[in-house]
Amino acid sequence: MNIEYDVIVIGGGISGLSAAKLLFESGLKVVVLEARDRVGGRTHTIRNKDVQYVDVGGAYVGPTQNRILRVAKELGVKTYKVNVSQRFIHHIKGKTNAFYGSFPPSWNPFVNLDYNHLWRTIDEWGKEIPEDAPWKAPHAAEWDKMSMKEFIEKVCWTKAAKRFAQLFVNVNVTSEPQQVSLLWFLWYTKLCGGTSRMFSVTNGGQERKFVGGAGQISEKIMDRLEGRVKLQSPVVRIDQSGGNVIVETLPHEIYQAKYVISAIPPILTTKIHFNPELPATRNQLIQRLPMGSVIKCMMYYKEAFWRKMDYCGAMYIENENAPVEITLDDTKPDGTFPAIMGFILSRKATSLAQLSKEERKRRICEYYAKALGTEEALHPVYYEEKNWCEEQYSGGCYTTYFPPGIMTQYGSVIRQPVGRIFFAGTETSTQWSGYMEGAVQAGERAAREVMCKLGLISNGEIWIPEPESEDVPALPFPTTFLERNLPSAQGLARFLCHSTFIAMVALGFFAYKKGLIVRV
Amino acid sequence: MNIEYDVIVIGGGISGLSAAKLLFESGLKVVVLEARDRVGGRTHTIRNKDVQYVDVGGAYVGPTQNRILRVAKELGVKTYKVNVSQRFIHHIKGKTNAFYGSFPPSWNPFVNLDYNHLWRTIDEWGKEIPEDAPWKAPHAAEWDKMSMKEFIEKVCWTKAAKRFAQLFVNVNVTSEPQQVSLLWFLWYTKLCGGTSRMFSVTNGGQERKFVGGAGQISEKIMDRLEGRVKLQSPVVRIDQSGGNVIVETLPHEIYQAKYVISAIPPILTTKIHFNPELPATRNQLIQRLPMGSVIKCMMYYKEAFWRKMDYCGAMYIENENAPVEITLDDTKPDGTFPAIMGFILSRKATSLAQLSKEERKRRICEYYAKALGTEEALHPVYYEEKNWCEEQYSGGCYTTYFPPGIMTQYGSVIRQPVGRIFFAGTETSTQWSGYMEGAVQAGERAAREVMCKLGLISNGEIWIPEPESEDVPALPFPTTFLERNLPSAQGLARFLCHSTFIAMVALGFFAYKKGLIVRV
Repeated sequence: MNIEYDVIVIGGGISGLSAAKLLFESGLKVVVLEARDRVGGRTHTIRNKDVQYVDVGGAYVGPTQNRILRVAKELGVKTYKVNVSQRFIHHIKGKTNAFYGSFPPSWNPFVNLDYNHLWRTIDEWGKEIPEDAPWKAPHAAEWDKMSMKEFIEKVCWTKAAKRFAQLFVNVNVTSEPQQVSLLWFLWYTKLCGGTSRMFSVTNGGQERKFVGGAGQISEKIMDRLEGRVKLQSPVVRIDQSGGNVIVETLPHEIYQAKYVISAIPPILTTKIHFNPELPATRNQLIQRLPMGSVIKCMMYYKEAFWRKMDYCGAMYIENENAPVEITLDDTKPDGTFPAIMGFILSRKATSLAQLSKEERKRRICEYYAKALGTEEALHPVYYEEKNWCEEQYSGGCYTTYFPPGIMTQYGSVIRQPVGRIFFAGTETSTQWSGYMEGAVQAGERAAREVMCKLGLISNGEIWIPEPESEDVPALPFPTTFLERNLPSAQGLARFLCHSTFIAMVALGFFAYKKGLIVRV
Repeated sequence: MNIEYDVIVIGGGISGLSAAKLLFESGLKVVVLEARDRVGGRTHTIRNKDVQYVDVGGAYVGPTQNRILRVAKELGVKTYKVNVSQRFIHHIKGKTNAFYGSFPPSWNPFVNLDYNHLWRTIDEWGKEIPEDAPWKAPHAAEWDKMSMKEFIEKVCWTKAAKRFAQLFVNVNVTSEPQQVSLLWFLWYTKLCGGTSRMFSVTNGGQERKFVGGAGQISEKIMDRLEGRVKLQSPVVRIDQSGGNVIVETLPHEIYQAKYVISAIPPILTTKIHFNPELPATRNQLIQRLPMGSVIKCMMYYKEAFWRKMDYCGAMYIENENAPVEITLDDTKPDGTFPAIMGFILSRKATSLAQLSKEERKRRICEYYAKALGTEEALHPVYYEEKNWCEEQYSGGCYTTYFPPGIMTQYGSVIRQPVGRIFFAGTETSTQWSGYMEGAVQAGERAAREVMCKLGLISNGEIWIPEPESEDVPALPFPTTFLERNLPSAQGLARFLCHSTFIAMVALGFFAYKKGLIVRV
């Protein structure tokens, strides 16, 4: 109780530590309170002899994620490219289709039109949504009333596209189409730079990983903060009724400061008892923002046998019985520790959590053997997994989703300070929300909000753009004339129907005139 | 730390106190930990000279709510009937339509057919849903993917029915159709005994109130528990890692017991730090069950002027600018303290919370004046209100709702014990969930679960039916042959279209045969 801090940061994930780093470097007295016995939050690098190191949490970075790339570079953490030198796999209806690039093609032109129309619609509609205020989009009310399930039913025409759209939602936001608001999903995708940037490996959000693991970012910031991070300090109480803000932890430590930055997911702020109580809209918003469901699974093999088969290790697997829906090669950049990373997502994460680790391992291997077409997949040398659904101090992974109707009714207070509490956390960012990039943006912005309050910077200096990373430049994703102008599958079908009908009528008339049909 | 309890009950609402009462009467050593400085939870009776007494929270009871009626009777709390002797009002498009009974009729037969079809469909579909396991309903997967908004769009044909269906959702579950799962809403309605039982005043859920206020139920149980209720004791920690369960409160008191009953809404259990962590599915379920949004408003007048106009004070008000959507007469049974009770619901509760109390009062009176057609409504003598959205230890009112996709993916663990923690709270009941009746059922059931664990009763004695109240008998809601068999508005329209077409064709053929139309 003796020390008075300038700022107490709640949460030692990338967002909280980015905030603390900036505040510390600005000469402010700061302390970080972290609930767990480690920093990193939803990033976590495990080290052991079987894996060397492995990210059981957030891991991927790519072009346009300039803030996390800048922080990593400053901390001396290098990136490497995820292997995509060989073919991708789209395993569907028990068959393996190999292809190059991030989006699976189809032999059926109607399905391809349907895919094209789906991505195009998500990206087009996203254009009207303000990054910092999605509730103000011209169609906000209408789109927030719809779930992604309704959107998919409306926009997709073929079963193939509908199924892949569900996988797309599962993979990107670890939840089901019926659970999430269309408005929120359009906004979320837009914040990543669109469907291609979000979903791609090359030139997209999964292009790279950190050599040595993403956990180093937080560990190295903690080192720089020289003892200012308090572990095993879950916050139970925030009292703003007096002059300073009082923060109490579960082990009864009391901290006081001029300001607080909450750098934990909105739902986890329900763990804190507030005095005075939160304003009504915030009190209700934080009940409405659940965390997604995912189990991250790493299967280690003696060798990267898939590469010999000209498969890169990236797979999309569509089958209700397949535990994993998406995989990527997780072999180390030097070729050691060959591994495949797979995500058990959403409904499957909930149901497969009931099994033993051994049973999950067995089922995953069986599916890899089917998809890769080789029994080699049945013989892993090691298995590592992490079920984020059981983590009290994450709530789930990767991030928060907005169910239908929440963004427009409650969303506008997401970043609104409550007295002397400011809000960081990737959920409050306006670029790559849900990603490490969003965590850094939000943490540094919240730090600058406090610095502004302390008179150190001006209002106009709170939100600042980030220059592009020199090491990881972004290429555009140009859309072709065809992609922009091809009809939807449904549109084409309708056109063909009409054309056929008109042709038949014309033919009939012609035949009649020529006396080929006789009126009786 | 010296006392070892048999059971610690968390939450001094009707559910927790019902549990504690039964355990105490069974000779067990029990303590109730209540976060607030009062008992009652979402029921709260305020007393002052301007209102005598008033329920600013849960208040209404009716036939088939036999458990709460039994408890009230035992405690010496009497009921009285809400006044419905005069006409109801349905205010729509700026016009006041007066009617008798609970459901407003329409001059338009298509709208009446549409209403009939809507209620009939909700009740019919509900029949297949198991009260204790809605996730097992034959159509569970399909219905849980749909929101009530989708259901309304599908089932209702007229704008009037669509709008009234939205009001029906707002009024019954204080949320928006797009926010709630169809499966959950069907289940919720079924647990009340169907649409008529749920929505009606006479013979329904709003038939009666308690003389002296519903808050007395909890207060009188607290008295009987003779000091075993600890107020201002929010629970921050539950530790099950040792022999007994350890429970710690915000003011650092430590309690230990053989068992714990959690009698707070699921979302509020996020305020507790658990060791060991909760199982994955429960950890995620409790993030997904928000509380509804409502401000309860009581307007007091010099006299019950509406009765002179042959209005009973019950109004349904459909207008986006009207603050209140539903009202009931709140005059005391002896005719003193004339008042109208109104609910500001869901989206309106969120937006109107931004105004001052004075401004809300003004807007409500203005609308009452419009709907009742008299300036007398502009001159209240007193105004009392309660915004449940800002209550940290309720989260909102009346109750929890399930967003689309949650019931089937996570719902099955709602009542599943976690180690030595058992779950009460109206959300875990299988009759009148969300009501005081459900609170009693759940509390007593959880108490008997613990008594079974302690060897005091057998497994078969946990769930016991409740005999019907002698004072408040339930009449059936018979459906007429017409109600069961009338076509839907859409069905009739289609039939009429087809009939007209066939009639036209027949007429044309007849005319042709008779030589009235000449072929050219």
